[in-house]
Parts: sequence; C-alpha cells; structure tokens
Amino acid sequence: MKVYGHPWSVNTRKTLMTLAEKRHDAELVLVMIPKGEQKHPSHLALHPFGKVPVLEDDGFVLFETRAINRYLDAKLGGNTLTPVALREVARQDQWINVADSYFIPFAHPLIVERLFRRYLGGEPNAQAISAGREGIEPALDAIDAALAVTSYLAGESFTLADVHWMPYLEYMSQIGEDEPIRRRRHLAAWWERVSNRPTWLEVARSGPQPYEKDMTADVIEKLYRK
Amino acid sequence: MKVYGHPWSVNTRKTLMTLAEKRHDAELVLVMIPKGEQKHPSHLALHPFGKVPVLEDDGFVLFETRAINRYLDAKLGGNTLTPVALREVARQDQWINVADSYFIPFAHPLIVERLFRRYLGGEPNAQAISAGREGIEPALDAIDAALAVTSYLAGESFTLADVHWMPYLEYMSQIGEDEPIRRRRHLAAWWERVSNRPTWLEVARSGPQPYEKDMTADVIEKLYRK
Repeated sequence: MKVYGHPWSVNTRKTLMTLAEKRHDAELVLVMIPKGEQKHPSHLALHPFGKVPVLEDDGFVLFETRAINRYLDAKLGGNTLTPVALREVARQDQWINVADSYFIPFAHPLIVERLFRRYLGGEPNAQAISAGREGIEPALDAIDAALAVTSYLAGESFTLADVHWMPYLEYMSQIGEDEPIRRRRHLAAWWERVSNRPTWLEVARSGPQPYEKDMTADVIEKLYRK
Repeated sequence: MKVYGHPWSVNTRKTLMTLAEKRHDAELVLVMIPKGEQKHPSHLALHPFGKVPVLEDDGFVLFETRAINRYLDAKLGGNTLTPVALREVARQDQWINVADSYFIPFAHPLIVERLFRRYLGGEPNAQAISAGREGIEPALDAIDAALAVTSYLAGESFTLADVHWMPYLEYMSQIGEDEPIRRRRHLAAWWERVSNRPTWLEVARSGPQPYEKDMTADVIEKLYRK
C-alpha cells in the first residue's frame, strides 16, 4: 500500500494513525504541500480535487480521508476502530460529522494561520485566528458533554471518531492554543488518554515537527523524498 | 421513530428517501425552518447545532444526516443501501465526502438563493449564485466520470451515496439550473434513472413543492403541524 501525503498534514495524520493502530506499514509517498505539489498533474491524476491523502492499494486508488480510514479499518488486522453496536456506530459517524461541519471549518484555519503560515508565505490572518478561536467553542462543548458519559467519543473503545479529532488538538496543544482543551475537564482527560497512545506518539511526535524552532519545510523533503 | 425536519429541507429529504427505500414509516415532526424553529430551545435540546434532521428511535436521539441514514440502513429491512464489497463501500464513502467537500458548499447556496430566498426574506445574492454555478462544475465532472463506468455512484446498486446527491439535483432540475446535468451524458442518464424511482417520486414530488407558483411556507405548516 502507498499513502500519498505529508507527515504534517492533519488529514494524512488521520490515515497514518489508522495504519499505526492497524499495525500495518504503508509507504508514505511525499506530496510537498508547501510547494503546491498537490496541484501538480501527476497528483491530480490520483485525486481530482488536489488534496491529500490518497491511498493506493494494489491498483485501487481511493481519496477522501474518511473513506480511506474506514476501508483500512475494515480490511486490515490490528485494533478494531469501528464499534460493533449499531448505536455506537451511529455516534461514531455523528462525531466525525460534527468535526467536519462545526469544528474543522474553524480549527483548520486557526492552525494554518498560527502554525503553517510561515511555510506557506504571507502574514497570519488575524481575523481567521479570532474567528477560529471563537468558532471552535460550541463543538468542543458538545464533545466535552459526550466525554462526560463515555471514555471515548463513540463509547468505551477508541475508534475512528477519536482519530478524526486528534490532529487538530495535537497542533492546538503544541502552539499554545490548548486553553480551550484544558478548560473542559472531560475533554482534557480524553486528550490526555488518547494523545499518550504509543501509536500517536509515533505518528505525531517522532521526527521533525512544524512547530519546532527554526524548522524549515525542506527538512521533510530531504527525509522522505525517494 | 420520529424524524424532526422539514419536507423541503435537502438533508431531511435524504433521511426521508432512506426511510422510503427501507419501507419504514416514521413520524415527521415539523421544524419550521422559515420561522427559525431549528434554533428554538426545544430543538437545540435535540441538536446542539440547531439543524435538521434529528432522529429519535425509542429514546435514542441521533443527529447528522450521514449518521442517521447509515443507522437506518443497518437497522431496518427493505432495500440494502450499502454495498457488500469493501471497495464499493469505500467508493460510497468517497462520493458522499466529495459531495460534502466539493459540491454542497456551492450547490446549497445556489439553491438557497435561487429557490428559498423568497421564503427566508431579503434579496437573492447574485455573487453566491454565480459562485455556485461555477463551483459545482469540478464535482459534477468527477461523478460524471465515475458514472461512465458504473450505473450508480458506488457500483451497480443504488446506495446512500446516490441518496446524498439527489436532493440538490432535484431542486436544480426544478428551477432551471439543470443544464450542468443535461450537458453530462452519464450524469444525465443516472439522474433519469434515480429520480424516477417510485420512492423518490413519493418523497420529492408528492405534496406541495417550494418551486410552485404562489406557494407560501405556511402551506407546509398547515399540512404537517399536529
């Protein structure tokens, strides 16, 4: 299997985390987002909308993170990341959708402006930062309330719903935007629990990180480009 | 079962279509969107983000359309709306995500401005209309290419992926925005096929419709309010 993506990309990390939980090694084919390679013709041939990740599995090309991760979970061994009970499956879908509809539209620009702007060029957009900080609040309230009842978003086991939120909270934590996490008791306890999984430490805290001092984008290119 | 929603709402229609395919009657509890009832405290107690539909099944309250429809499909009899083969399941997820990421962000405002603006008040936003018309093109190209290979989005059977796109194409067709459908041969043939399903005729073409001449929002309230 090949995963086309970038180790710093939030969506690539969801797939790398899924693979780590499934204990499956796939080749990471680097797409240098800071250079705009996701819009190059060779990548557009795999993903018509020019995004990462893309999965290639024995000739089968699949894009869109949610689709990739469900496919990997159903196909591979390792930890099962989908609940068995119908109502828990429904909660899993619900919290993934809540991320997509009410959290990521605010959290992603916040992270881009506060962390990735320096790799992309231009000045941070102060309005996107303040709209992001304000916009994430209702979604964090909603999952905090859910996590008051269950240990993980979809119930008592770690699932793709947890994976779906983690990359944003990781970057928020690393760049001093974690007060909204620490302020919510159940969310903070969940974050402590999931972010210390050995799989997550491997995916998100080993190797060069974008928030490190004096980091440059080409460090990743030198490491991963074949 | 109860579905909280509005018969003209695109997301409510996805759930009503799923129920129709599953041959299951649920009570439609009217949420009068033109009056902003989705933001009333009684509805916010069901859906913290104030949207429709919401499903209530024997005390289990579920929101977010994708979660609801997968739950209904797994739980109820009738037609099976999820493929069996892993790669077809993956395609189903992929095309639902493509709608959410690249089609609905343009198609929804187009429909709101061209069709629902008169019920919501204010003047149509010409910029949203032209951005919508332009923005839907790449996503329609992508599904047209897929539908050149298979009869339905996820393969040779009708699935939740088809359901997910239908309400937008229905309204586009009814308000003279269907040239982008007719111009694409495979998409047009698929639309002809799926929109003539008896279930769809029942869900989307029986009863008062928002594009009818001299229609008013309270026609629906009179019909559905208990």
